[in-house]
Amino acid sequence: MRIVFIGAGNLATHLAPALACAGHEIVQVYSRTLSSAQTLGEILQCPFTTTLTDVVVHADLYVFSVKDSVLETLISQFAPKCPKALFIHTAGSMPMCVFSNYAIRFGVFYPMQTFSKTKQVDFSIIPIFVEASSPEELKQLQQLAQYLSEHVYELSSVQRSYLHLSAVFACNFANHCYALAQEILKEQRIPFEVMLPLIDETTEKIHVVSPCDAQTGPAVRYDKNIIDKHLDLLCNYPKLQELYQLMSESIYRQKTNKTD
Amino acid sequence: MRIVFIGAGNLATHLAPALACAGHEIVQVYSRTLSSAQTLGEILQCPFTTTLTDVVVHADLYVFSVKDSVLETLISQFAPKCPKALFIHTAGSMPMCVFSNYAIRFGVFYPMQTFSKTKQVDFSIIPIFVEASSPEELKQLQQLAQYLSEHVYELSSVQRSYLHLSAVFACNFANHCYALAQEILKEQRIPFEVMLPLIDETTEKIHVVSPCDAQTGPAVRYDKNIIDKHLDLLCNYPKLQELYQLMSESIYRQKTNKTD
Repeated sequence: MRIVFIGAGNLATHLAPALACAGHEIVQVYSRTLSSAQTLGEILQCPFTTTLTDVVVHADLYVFSVKDSVLETLISQFAPKCPKALFIHTAGSMPMCVFSNYAIRFGVFYPMQTFSKTKQVDFSIIPIFVEASSPEELKQLQQLAQYLSEHVYELSSVQRSYLHLSAVFACNFANHCYALAQEILKEQRIPFEVMLPLIDETTEKIHVVSPCDAQTGPAVRYDKNIIDKHLDLLCNYPKLQELYQLMSESIYRQKTNKTD
Repeated sequence: MRIVFIGAGNLATHLAPALACAGHEIVQVYSRTLSSAQTLGEILQCPFTTTLTDVVVHADLYVFSVKDSVLETLISQFAPKCPKALFIHTAGSMPMCVFSNYAIRFGVFYPMQTFSKTKQVDFSIIPIFVEASSPEELKQLQQLAQYLSEHVYELSSVQRSYLHLSAVFACNFANHCYALAQEILKEQRIPFEVMLPLIDETTEKIHVVSPCDAQTGPAVRYDKNIIDKHLDLLCNYPKLQELYQLMSESIYRQKTNKTD
């Protein structure tokens, strides 16, 4: 397929080369930001532009990989020009229907991973969630995805919104727990590196045990002695105290199977 | 050294065999719980007892690896019988001074890891934090630790309490974020396994980038659009809504360097 990328952020920077490797031709990259457009254009050795009206209209597939807040505006400005093309976006939290008013053939292609521009990722293990406007387009997107990954799932927009929500917990919030640990250690001049074996083991464990069963620590048994000590240590950080308390209660509630 | 283990929980089950492998002799295991005492006794092929008054008094080292709530009581009942022995505990959150009234030679030996009885761990990568009542005992504990691990640190009781607090964030709370993600996915009949590549990558990343710099997701840029959508999805779970809100604010606060 002849593909145009609308957007040149972290996800596009990994997805576009992966699609090129799979034998597709990336014919153009658009980004509002010159440096992003140029960088990805150079990686792919293809033309780039920062002007939406300069985007070619003869491609087979247009991949919108942009901020949620500008997605619909860009679609509305561009899609009506190419009534025969297939349009997809890559956003976990945006429904497929953002295309409905502006295109005929469309879908969603959501590779669920945390992408940084500089860190290589292995696409073959990344789950890709697809959804399409018709069975024909669905088949096309499934084939596209299967060239990249062994884990391709069809998922509705509603289910994908819950998937994205749980990814925020499992990735963004878990990472913030590491960041808060680092903050606490920094004040004690203890290097964060000492925490890595513990973090690695915690992550390894949930490959074999469900996270709920793997839960350890003072909150599981609601050990008030330790919990109160920890709240005391956080006495200068009322917001962290609140977070510690809420987390501990939530762990205990889950363990004792009380519903919210 | 001739060593007695007071306690046969998860940590003791890994530490005692590791010390035996390093050439020490485990002469006895005590646990209040018969099955625990027996299991560890059989692993070590050494005598075991559930009666504190039957614990031998001629060992060189007594390792207290018991619940925080019973630690001081057990020390007070046993330690005065062996004025020449060295006493240590393995608790992250208990100060060294729990020994002061009952023993002369004492210290702390805290291997920071999440131990499950059934899962093997590689002691050589686990950081061990030691503290002792005098330079002589400190040297002894450092040597003991260095036989097991390449990462041995001296740390005061106060610093260790902060270390333990940050371990609760990095291990227990991070794991709970996984458990909450699993709960959300379960309701949508999406298997938790789809989350593992994302979790693995999040953990791998902080080996090369600090967790604060690695932070991604809607909260970093306080994307109110997505955050409000997610809060809506959680409308039947007010406690999770509260947690989501607090986490997002904390991420944003850290990113914008506001102090608490």
